This record gives sequence, C-alpha cells and structure tokens, in this order.
Amino acid sequence: MEEPNGEFAHVAWIRAQTATNRLVAVGPGDDAAVLRVGHDLLATTDMLVEGVHFTFDEASPYAVGRKAMNVNLSDVAAMAGKPQFALVAVALPPGTATTVGREIFRGMQEAAARFGVVIVGGDTNRSPTGVVVSATVLGAPTGRGPALRSGAKPGDALCVTGTLGYSRRGKHLDFTPRVVEAQRLHARFSISAMMDLSDGLGGDLFHLLSESQVGAVVDAEALPISAGFADDRSPLAHALDDGEDFELLFTLPADEAHRLLREQPLMDLGTPIAKIGDITADRAATLRTTAGSKPFPKGGFVHRC
Amino acid sequence: MEEPNGEFAHVAWIRAQTATNRLVAVGPGDDAAVLRVGHDLLATTDMLVEGVHFTFDEASPYAVGRKAMNVNLSDVAAMAGKPQFALVAVALPPGTATTVGREIFRGMQEAAARFGVVIVGGDTNRSPTGVVVSATVLGAPTGRGPALRSGAKPGDALCVTGTLGYSRRGKHLDFTPRVVEAQRLHARFSISAMMDLSDGLGGDLFHLLSESQVGAVVDAEALPISAGFADDRSPLAHALDDGEDFELLFTLPADEAHRLLREQPLMDLGTPIAKIGDITADRAATLRTTAGSKPFPKGGFVHRC
Repeated sequence: MEEPNGEFAHVAWIRAQTATNRLVAVGPGDDAAVLRVGHDLLATTDMLVEGVHFTFDEASPYAVGRKAMNVNLSDVAAMAGKPQFALVAVALPPGTATTVGREIFRGMQEAAARFGVVIVGGDTNRSPTGVVVSATVLGAPTGRGPALRSGAKPGDALCVTGTLGYSRRGKHLDFTPRVVEAQRLHARFSISAMMDLSDGLGGDLFHLLSESQVGAVVDAEALPISAGFADDRSPLAHALDDGEDFELLFTLPADEAHRLLREQPLMDLGTPIAKIGDITADRAATLRTTAGSKPFPKGGFVHRC
Repeated sequence: MEEPNGEFAHVAWIRAQTATNRLVAVGPGDDAAVLRVGHDLLATTDMLVEGVHFTFDEASPYAVGRKAMNVNLSDVAAMAGKPQFALVAVALPPGTATTVGREIFRGMQEAAARFGVVIVGGDTNRSPTGVVVSATVLGAPTGRGPALRSGAKPGDALCVTGTLGYSRRGKHLDFTPRVVEAQRLHARFSISAMMDLSDGLGGDLFHLLSESQVGAVVDAEALPISAGFADDRSPLAHALDDGEDFELLFTLPADEAHRLLREQPLMDLGTPIAKIGDITADRAATLRTTAGSKPFPKGGFVHRC
C-alpha cells in the first residue's frame, strides 16, 4: 500500500533479507503467505507506537524492531509454544531515512531468527507522524499442548522465572523471550497455568487468577527483585508495577514445585526460578509481608512516555 | 499493553462481541489464540493509518474498521483462499471516545463475520496522535491450492472482475472482497495467476507480470471503467491509477477464457468479468489504444491524504 516503484524495491530488499524454510511454501511478495502447518496454531499480535511504547531518544530503530518481535515471541513462549512464522507491518513518517526502516526490519529479523522464526509477510506504510510497528507471530503448541492461563488449581505453587522490576534499566528494550525456558518447563513438569509478565505482576497476576477462577497468597519476601536504582518507590513497588519483565508466571502442583526448585532446570540458561506463593480456592489475592497480610495491590504497567 | 483495569473491561467486551467456532480452541484473553488448522495456511497483514489511508472527515470509525478487515480479506481472496481467522491491533489517541474504538471493532467484526471469519486475538494501545488499525487474516487454500501471482503463461487471457477506477466515489471505503468470486473461479477454471487490484492496474499489473516473468498486451478499449465524475483526468487514467478497486486481476488459458466470458459465472453475484488483454512471452507491458500501441504507463496508487 505504498507507491509501486518503492514497493518493488522494498519487496526485493525484504526478500533478500528473509530466511525461509521448508514450511514456507510462499513467502513475501504474493497477496498472502502460504504456510505448511498441519497442526494446531498459536497466533498473537502486538503493536508498538512511537511516543507510547518507545521513543527514539531511548531506543535505536534496531532495538524497536527487536522489541516488536520479542513481545510477540514472549506471548508464544507463554503458551509453551514453538514460534514459527511472523508477519510485520510498519508505518514510517515521510522523510524517514531508508536506513531507519531497514534497521527496524533487521531488529525484527534477528530477533525472529534467534528462534528459527521466518518473516513471511509484511506491509509498509507511511505514517503522518510517529513510527508504528506491528507484528503477528504464529507457532505450534509443544508437548502436552498449549499452556493456558486458565489451569491453576488450589494448592498449586505460583512461580516466576528470572527477576522482576526495574525493567527500565534496559530490560524493557533488550530481553530474551522465554521460549526455550517455557518449552522445557512444559516438557518436564505439569505446568497447570502460564503467562508472560508484560504488565507487571500487580496487573498480570489478576489475569491468571481470573482465568483460572482461583486466588493466591503471594509472599512479598519471596519475590525475586532485579537490581535497581534509588528513587522514591520501594523495590517491592518496582517489582509489582514496573511491567515489561517478560518473565514467565506459572503454576504447578506443589510436589512438582519442590522438585523444580531443587533441580532449577533453567540454570544453564541463566534463568533462576522462584516460588512466590500458593494458589488458593478462596478467590482473593493476598500479599503476605513481614508486617502482615493485605489485599494484593492491583497495579501494573501504565505506559509512561 | 494498556492499563490493567481498562484491559479487563476491554477484553470482556471483546469476548462478548466475538463469535467463535469449532476451529477456535482458545480465543481472545490468553497470551495467544489456539487454532485448529491442520492444513496449509494463508497469512496476510495490512495496516491503515489515519491521515494516510483515511480521515475521519470522510470515513466513520465503523467504515475504517470494515476497511481494515476487508483489505486483508481481499488478499486472501486473491489467493482463492477461504479466510478463517483474524487478529487485530488498534491504537487510539488519548481521549478517544469508547464508542470510536467499539465502532472500529464492530466494523472489523461485521466484515469478518460476513465470510465466517472469527477474530481470535487483538491488541489495543494508545497512540500519541492518529488512529492506527492493523489486521492479520489467516485462511485455507481451496481446491487446487493457492492461486499465486506467478503462474501466468504466454497465450493466457488477462481478465478482471468488476470495474476499475473512480474508487473515491465510495468503493474505497465500502467494497466487497472478492472471496466468493475467487473461490468459484478457481474451482471452475484453470486460473494460472491471480492477485487483487489494490494499487491500481497501472501498478499491480507489473507485479503479476514480474512474478510470472511474462509480458502483456492490454486493450485500453476493453477496460471496464466504473461510473465516474468530471475532472481533468481521463477515465482511462482513473482506471489505471486510482487504485483501491479491490477487484481480481487473473489469467487463464485462452480456451477457458472463451468459456468463462460466455458463461459469466459471477453474474448472480453482480460481478461481470472482462478480458482486458493477453499474456505474452515478450516481457514488455503494452497498452493498445485506438491511436496505436505504447508502453503500458507505470503508475498506480499513491496515497493522497
């Protein structure tokens, strides 16, 4: 949907950049991609908007492209899925240097290639002002099928990968979607529910509990908090509300959790796992601190640009 | 990726609006949709940006949503595919009335439902200024497999559905993606190449010829031109360059074209078919007029907002 001569050159460039594999019968350049799937399909989409999700003061075009792909890969990871294909759409203001569009694409491309994902289609447009990047990622469930948000049971342990909070130190722009971690957890343990933490535990916990129709008691002292910086908010507030952790929040039966915590099966990937609480039949969400228990503070990520 | 309370309400609203079917194992509300496909998959994405592809002076939010879906459905139609699933992403400026977002969604939803397509995922964001709507549509090939741009052979007839040009009279906002037409043509005739006309014949013809590595002679007098309006451009210029016709451009062997033109198999859908030229081994594109032949004028759609 841009002027044809530019589109010819752009499609040629995209094709030259684009890896392919035996599952891609038709890649970019026709009206639609043709993909050899033959299995259940995971599908997710996310859009990043300049001035809302990023600014170029803070993020390079490469980092913006990488993030646009990674937030989608994180969603497929959260289903314990194997990401396979991506479609991308980008809008650029008039006068944007060609290199900016290419750097955004390179960021998407390299983030995708890291997990064997092929970009099979795209759309490049003008934008009147800021840059908009949208990606759709498709993939396959693994092992026991997709890990949903809705399977947590009373008595299950509530766990997270990695550490939470202070994502603005850099993790919000450069993180590893937990694709490998999620597949391994799903293969070796009876994961009952899983999601990725994009809005912060203070927001996302409620999604998991709501979908599973359960409650939870979370131990504030058990929360693994990222290395931070001094400001007027507590490390706990950062861990609950900063968002963009892109870690996995998941549940599994208590006895399997004991084994998991003992084995720490993701340490070769540099990813510790912590148990942060327990799932309850009582649908309340409670935060237990040294000062006593209180309703879990509903918070989470509000975009700050 | 918006603040959690609003997201809860929004997801609940989306779920209430969303039709489902037996192929949707998990719809909106988890990290990704789970789709029961089990066949080759067609996948396409298109983004509409306020101030580039539409303005709200001209288009209602409903019409914008409908168009965002229909441009993608048109791409699946162009593969002779059966569209099945959609994922949508919308960015709205702060202070946008709730009804605007809902009307955009209703437009997407109704356009999708017309062809049995289910919206299985989405992302709602803030935008600093204009509205951005992005959709991805997934579907299945039909009959002999996907109708590609790359199969035109010398001697084939070059045909179009419907009429071309003057789309700004209203068709650019309210058109019927040729989903039913394409499937029927593909089932009954040996369609060798097909694409949808989004950029105008003056742009898109070159895509089909380039992909098929052939040329064409087009008869200017044979072009079916839409009812127009008086301005300083000729009806021929409108037919070649206006874009957004969203008709099918396709090729098939000459003998089958004779049968097709005699049968006019889409008349019950109100869609005439015209032969506009012939595919040649010589890779040039030629326009034959009453004044003689000349190189086919390369033109096509440039966004005019």
